[in-house]
Amino acid sequence: MEKELNILVTNDDGINSPGLEVLARAASKFGKVAIFAPDRQQSAVSSALTINRPLKVQKYFKNKEFYGYAVDGTPADCVKMALTTLLDFKPDLILSGINHGKNTSINVMYSGTVAAAVEGVMAGINSIAFSITSHSLYVEMKAAEEYAVKIIESVVSRSWDTKILLNVNIPAIEAGSIKGIRVTKLAKSYWNDWFERREDPFGNEYFWFAGDYITSDHDKETDDTAIEDDFVSVTPLKFLFDDVDTIKKIKFVESLR
Amino acid sequence: MEKELNILVTNDDGINSPGLEVLARAASKFGKVAIFAPDRQQSAVSSALTINRPLKVQKYFKNKEFYGYAVDGTPADCVKMALTTLLDFKPDLILSGINHGKNTSINVMYSGTVAAAVEGVMAGINSIAFSITSHSLYVEMKAAEEYAVKIIESVVSRSWDTKILLNVNIPAIEAGSIKGIRVTKLAKSYWNDWFERREDPFGNEYFWFAGDYITSDHDKETDDTAIEDDFVSVTPLKFLFDDVDTIKKIKFVESLR
Repeated sequence: MEKELNILVTNDDGINSPGLEVLARAASKFGKVAIFAPDRQQSAVSSALTINRPLKVQKYFKNKEFYGYAVDGTPADCVKMALTTLLDFKPDLILSGINHGKNTSINVMYSGTVAAAVEGVMAGINSIAFSITSHSLYVEMKAAEEYAVKIIESVVSRSWDTKILLNVNIPAIEAGSIKGIRVTKLAKSYWNDWFERREDPFGNEYFWFAGDYITSDHDKETDDTAIEDDFVSVTPLKFLFDDVDTIKKIKFVESLR
Repeated sequence: MEKELNILVTNDDGINSPGLEVLARAASKFGKVAIFAPDRQQSAVSSALTINRPLKVQKYFKNKEFYGYAVDGTPADCVKMALTTLLDFKPDLILSGINHGKNTSINVMYSGTVAAAVEGVMAGINSIAFSITSHSLYVEMKAAEEYAVKIIESVVSRSWDTKILLNVNIPAIEAGSIKGIRVTKLAKSYWNDWFERREDPFGNEYFWFAGDYITSDHDKETDDTAIEDDFVSVTPLKFLFDDVDTIKKIKFVESLR
């Protein structure tokens, strides 16, 4: 690299997650790394912001060395905290992950990993969310790290007319078994979910979220299919919410009296 | 109405919010109402789901009468809990709100009120999010209730080829001052936000989210402009995240070795 970059690294699994360490190491090949991550597991918190209570930010140490900042909030809080308040520079790149568990299809709406990257691109910074397709904290990440480095390199070595948001999912298999990278769209998968009804030790009812992820969309161009086919999936995302087609259909409400 | 509808009502301000009561009353004109709402304030939690801890669901009473179910989770949890586990029917309509505080432009991404309606439409149910442009819990909601009834009527009296998601914002002004309804798109507004640094009674630093909402987009067709012009704003939304245009631009990563 000609230029040392400033890179913000975050995640939703929390500052102690092995995946965060792998991504920070990958990022360090390109410049200086600042870590701002939730102090605990924050999976599925979407773009949640903490507005009703204050946040504490603690310096977090690994082997007695300063490692990064732990925020007792969400991934979106972490990125906003870094960009608006605690970093004295604007990062050139924001990386989120490596999430333990895949974030394909509808999961991008719920994922805190992706939400952190969304905050990045909204602030005008190229942002990449990374996930590996295993929830295990002990999953081998050698291949994931190699692909993260390749994808970061490809993003930072080009100029972009508009900032980009990429969602990368890496199969949890050996490097030699990964067939390459596929640029994808989101599959039309969904969760068939429910709450398991249980009883606490006092006989009181409680409910625990559960679900099956249903991938019935086997279109070759989707993220879920790429993963099934042992490819790394790279999906460009945008978060826009206007339903322009329906504006015409609903226009009649303007005449309600 | 020819047919009694089954309507699920929820919000993000919590089950004790005055706005929820107003919306439940408006809904009751169209059929049977089931209330599932967070047990406390859940503003800005976006589509967050509670997956790392169980949820408790309590019957909630007002004046000793059963009022609805209070869930110690997020608005998205409430809708999923109702639809997948606790309701023994599929609602014909889901209503969320009336939120105390406007949800225009980028706020739709963070709003728990909108997120509840998103869960509804994803489950194949027409869903409407309502907000009033005042954060006060004591705001007069007579006009808001009237407009909610009109808009619900207009949605349930028609058939739709695809389910719709509407985001309604109502000015917190007298009914007579509201000029009508405008069908809108989202404004390109944003938050200029930061965290206020303070000290707790022990001298420890803490941070509180703060921000200014910047509306520089004065396009006549936007939600923020409708509100400024004293119109009720009705914005059709969709939550799709693919950035199809960027797929071509990023295709080169498939050749990375």
